[in-house]
Amino acid sequence: MRGRFITFEGADGCGKTTQLRRAVDRLRALGVDVVATREPGGSSAGAEIRSLVLDRRERPIVPVAELLLIEADRAQHVVETIRPAIERGAFVICDRFTDATVAYQGGGRGLDPALIGTLNLIATGGLEPDMTLVFDVDVSEAMRRLDRRAAESGGEAATRFDLEHAGFHDRVRSAYLDIAGKSPGRVRVIDANRPIEVVAADVDRFVEELRCRCAI
Amino acid sequence: MRGRFITFEGADGCGKTTQLRRAVDRLRALGVDVVATREPGGSSAGAEIRSLVLDRRERPIVPVAELLLIEADRAQHVVETIRPAIERGAFVICDRFTDATVAYQGGGRGLDPALIGTLNLIATGGLEPDMTLVFDVDVSEAMRRLDRRAAESGGEAATRFDLEHAGFHDRVRSAYLDIAGKSPGRVRVIDANRPIEVVAADVDRFVEELRCRCAI
Repeated sequence: MRGRFITFEGADGCGKTTQLRRAVDRLRALGVDVVATREPGGSSAGAEIRSLVLDRRERPIVPVAELLLIEADRAQHVVETIRPAIERGAFVICDRFTDATVAYQGGGRGLDPALIGTLNLIATGGLEPDMTLVFDVDVSEAMRRLDRRAAESGGEAATRFDLEHAGFHDRVRSAYLDIAGKSPGRVRVIDANRPIEVVAADVDRFVEELRCRCAI
Repeated sequence: MRGRFITFEGADGCGKTTQLRRAVDRLRALGVDVVATREPGGSSAGAEIRSLVLDRRERPIVPVAELLLIEADRAQHVVETIRPAIERGAFVICDRFTDATVAYQGGGRGLDPALIGTLNLIATGGLEPDMTLVFDVDVSEAMRRLDRRAAESGGEAATRFDLEHAGFHDRVRSAYLDIAGKSPGRVRVIDANRPIEVVAADVDRFVEELRCRCAI
């Protein structure tokens, strides 16, 4: 049996990582073979690449270099982790994938969407998620959550992206909604302004929809 | 005055790094503002990227990921080091550049030349060397030099590329000669089977040709 591949997407502060952990726990409790992974940083070369892309640096990498690093990590991640897991029949859940590049490097940083599309195709070899959940949250709510996260970690912003201004996050959000509009068969938008448990019920429903599709 | 940009290229064991150091020393002794740099690893993110690309690893990176990492380093290197140096009028000498990617990832690893051309253009933003010296050496001579280098460093191969078989190095060499054939205005091929001092005389001649062009 071929496995399934679902991606969790959304702007920083949308709560997707919390929801992903919860979904993984639930599926494992049901005996499902789950592979939980993430980008950037999912590949064996990923820790170094993730650090290059996300860490605050005195001389930050330029946008095109950032894009190429993300795609390098993706190419390795797909060959090494995602494809083998799908082929053995696992349920692969990935925290960010190609849509994140369209949203952050395209919408956020303003890089050419055609260039990003080309690089996404090169890096994935054409692999697409069976389903993508976009956790949509108001930018003001997302910023509030990021501030709280920063306060809890001693005042440090978590990544270079957390330091971007509201306009950046707004463009990222719009880009995600645009992707959802263009790919209604693959992408489900979830209102992530609501309480965690309410959002989780939506996640469970969509995951079960994909599992059933899987069984047919 | 706009500076000049020259690249030194050739298969492993061709002696280009030795020749580059010599050329830099000579130009500095003449009072020329020289920037000596290299790829991969020339950018501020380069040490990490170079290590990812070149180091021997239990799980080596896949060819497409390798290509994307090299291009990421190049994009950063061009913006951060090469372009600013050329703009201030310096003489930039770079150990490997875009031709190395055509030769190694294209000729050596068999990746699609059109893909490499696209990525080279993305990474450089269209910047091309004013002159490229290709140090051409017989594969048997190159292998002998690499063996000697390995013996001198305690039996360890210097990089992952040094471990490739003769067929790989042969394809790299052919690819370099093919580039030279296609770009006769930019590329000069130097017979690097000859003694260091004889090769160095050719290098000096070509560098002076470029400096004179510079002064016009």
